[in-house]
Amino acid sequence: MTMSKGVGAGLRHLLTLADLTPQSLLALLDRAQVFRTHPHNTTAFRHLLAGHAVCGLFFEPSTRTRSSFQLAAQRLGADVLHFDVATSSAGKGESDVDTLRTIEAMGVQGFVVRHPREGAVAELAGHAGPGTAVINAGDGRHAHPTQALLDMLTLRQAKGADFSRLRVLIVGDVRHSRVARSAVQALRMLGCAGIRVCAPEALLPDDEALAGSEITQDFDAAIASVDAVMMLRLQRERMQDGVVASLDDYRRDYRLDARRLGLAAPDAVVLHPGPINREVEIASDVADGPQSLILQQVANGVAVRMAVLEALLAPGTDRAE
Amino acid sequence: MTMSKGVGAGLRHLLTLADLTPQSLLALLDRAQVFRTHPHNTTAFRHLLAGHAVCGLFFEPSTRTRSSFQLAAQRLGADVLHFDVATSSAGKGESDVDTLRTIEAMGVQGFVVRHPREGAVAELAGHAGPGTAVINAGDGRHAHPTQALLDMLTLRQAKGADFSRLRVLIVGDVRHSRVARSAVQALRMLGCAGIRVCAPEALLPDDEALAGSEITQDFDAAIASVDAVMMLRLQRERMQDGVVASLDDYRRDYRLDARRLGLAAPDAVVLHPGPINREVEIASDVADGPQSLILQQVANGVAVRMAVLEALLAPGTDRAE
Amino acid sequence: MTMSKGVGAGLRHLLTLADLTPQSLLALLDRAQVFRTHPHNTTAFRHLLAGHAVCGLFFEPSTRTRSSFQLAAQRLGADVLHFDVATSSAGKGESDVDTLRTIEAMGVQGFVVRHPREGAVAELAGHAGPGTAVINAGDGRHAHPTQALLDMLTLRQAKGADFSRLRVLIVGDVRHSRVARSAVQALRMLGCAGIRVCAPEALLPDDEALAGSEITQDFDAAIASVDAVMMLRLQRERMQDGVVASLDDYRRDYRLDARRLGLAAPDAVVLHPGPINREVEIASDVADGPQSLILQQVANGVAVRMAVLEALLAPGTDRAE
Repeated sequence: MTMSKGVGAGLRHLLTLADLTPQSLLALLDRAQVFRTHPHNTTAFRHLLAGHAVCGLFFEPSTRTRSSFQLAAQRLGADVLHFDVATSSAGKGESDVDTLRTIEAMGVQGFVVRHPREGAVAELAGHAGPGTAVINAGDGRHAHPTQALLDMLTLRQAKGADFSRLRVLIVGDVRHSRVARSAVQALRMLGCAGIRVCAPEALLPDDEALAGSEITQDFDAAIASVDAVMMLRLQRERMQDGVVASLDDYRRDYRLDARRLGLAAPDAVVLHPGPINREVEIASDVADGPQSLILQQVANGVAVRMAVLEALLAPGTDRAE
Repeated sequence: MTMSKGVGAGLRHLLTLADLTPQSLLALLDRAQVFRTHPHNTTAFRHLLAGHAVCGLFFEPSTRTRSSFQLAAQRLGADVLHFDVATSSAGKGESDVDTLRTIEAMGVQGFVVRHPREGAVAELAGHAGPGTAVINAGDGRHAHPTQALLDMLTLRQAKGADFSRLRVLIVGDVRHSRVARSAVQALRMLGCAGIRVCAPEALLPDDEALAGSEITQDFDAAIASVDAVMMLRLQRERMQDGVVASLDDYRRDYRLDARRLGLAAPDAVVLHPGPINREVEIASDVADGPQSLILQQVANGVAVRMAVLEALLAPGTDRAE
Repeated sequence: MTMSKGVGAGLRHLLTLADLTPQSLLALLDRAQVFRTHPHNTTAFRHLLAGHAVCGLFFEPSTRTRSSFQLAAQRLGADVLHFDVATSSAGKGESDVDTLRTIEAMGVQGFVVRHPREGAVAELAGHAGPGTAVINAGDGRHAHPTQALLDMLTLRQAKGADFSRLRVLIVGDVRHSRVARSAVQALRMLGCAGIRVCAPEALLPDDEALAGSEITQDFDAAIASVDAVMMLRLQRERMQDGVVASLDDYRRDYRLDARRLGLAAPDAVVLHPGPINREVEIASDVADGPQSLILQQVANGVAVRMAVLEALLAPGTDRAE
């Protein structure tokens, strides 16, 4: 466990993957792998954050990310608070910063924050006290670093530690996706050179997020020989706001089905951050098929969040386990 | 504790009482009795489900059943998650099955599911992974097995283990009641031959649920000499949808008051699943009187749910206590 | 710790500070001070309420008071339930008393109750069983005893144990404030003779709550040489219902800013129960300034609630620590 030692050294918050070096990112994956595979992983680590408290501050609703962090915190022995800020009296005219500071003053040192606005989590973190750690659980279309970490852990389990020869295809609404942005960032940090992106013009980002990636609208061409396909969720609002004019057209051009998956490398794997829209962006037989790692992603998510919480809140803990 | 050993052997889910044999039903009651009467029952059993996680999936709101299961799980040392599915983002187009599988992938092996539709909980259970246990916490008007178990435990504490000579009267909205259906099933499994049902015509079931029971509209006649009266809650919607035309008539004909209770056996006991509508189906002096076991039912509920959770999630645990 | 021994002797509920003697109030502050300053205060006391369960019953929403009690209960090792009664199915026609009794029957012995109506918490407590303790977490404009305790602890930490020479100014909507009522009561019990109140006529109480206090509308005069200023929150509804006609006038006359604070004693401290309305009743530079104890109040709140929960639920516990 020498590599894992000191994962969190110097790590204050996890707002984007830019807070990590490639080395500390790998150390988090190593530590998550320990949490994932330990035969008593729900009981053996309860001392690590005993007495700590972790508070979810969700300015945008979520159940899966919330639950994943909650289980991660509980398995490390932490107490868990949760605020659905949209629906709570935290809204009684109090600023978001005051809400954070108040809970902080109660002795809570870990915050898991989701916010609909890009940059809002980093702003909050900027106002946190010196002993407080903020984890970005998704801010607008900007970043979702723990999702990228769990994606990388899943890819590494399936494809090995050498990302340099990996060909990865990301498909769907990249423009509005914090998942895609963080995944591209993580893949680059791990040395992956073969990143392809496939999306309709209207769903491509208008910034530099994909600079250096191969971009196309032709799914059949893009998927040829790739090792991994990362599908993105098509938000319903994309259909409502007219960005995607025809769901039938979207399905025809951008749904991953068995035929298309057959064009990828024979042992290609399929990822999706969930929740999936069956028969919209992904066919059910693919989602449930042998090449799908979707549920492994979910399982890895808890382990990755344990690693991040530990690194931020108990970086000096002795990890002999 | 020899009887209790192996309660859960072969028990995968608890969807209806048909998942139990009379013997395993009795073993659950025995085990619940241990949990109920142990002098340190809130601390002594925390090792039994340590490291386990139990998730409430409520597609229909509830506070008492939710809280009862939550306390039961906590007293066994389990972590507890709760999803109010109606109000959560689990509804983001994700199917109920995908929600279950996702939480399952996080390492949760126990699900407590309530659903407004008959059969929906069994359907979900059919999609659960091999290590997962689903407990039906009420599906439409179909079944509510843990309620029936707590009713039986309460009756057994009051009336002894021989159900064969027990005369039980069930009164009220049998038609829409999963509580009544499961109670009748349980009473039969325990050998009770004397089941009477009293309800207005419109509130009698249209299926075979009561086959073999004595059915009447005459409360005064029906209650004569019975040992136990199980009152049912009159849902407000029954009044709103016109099934019950006049609340005054309903009270006159189907409310349990002190006069009527006087017609039962002198030591007759009164049960009600709660929440009670005071002065609708039950008079306050009866609900709060010495023959009422309503609060004992609630207390037994936690113990029964501990027994069920243990049987499903840790059937091989050594129960020397 | 001799003083702390027996804090809870004879204390059944905490509905108002009248449930305490000056001596038992001081003993609670002493005990809270231990919880506040113990170097391992989030882990060292988990045995004290192990196996106990504490239920929040909130008929009025709250996040900060709820969270403060939740953390307090968890740090004492208790299980925690929470009911938002306004939004829950506890409202299915069930009376508040039946809700309490039902949860009580599940083995819950501690209730933290907030209610919009004056006296409602005491009424509920009157129906509680013999082993049950009810803590008033705020009932209408009547009382909020744990807030007053945390205010007194904060004042004592800053100003020492002798309250007799302390000059305290309370400013704002005293009329609708349970915080102010409980604070005045606490200050008197601790021997504080110098209580001043400053509020517009329309926001002064119409009862005897302030009898004996010096009342004025002139903030600049009132603040002269005081040792502590307790600011109250201006509820938005006060503006909506026309009681406060002009927010600009209110700010001019009743906002605490740096100039006004300069008129107080040089080492005067500023308290506010939160959540604060920045630039309404308090200027940001004062709220965040060196004389502000607002976040210390929050931190003391958890410690005070630990002391109260312990005193009510485990009064005989050996406190050698």
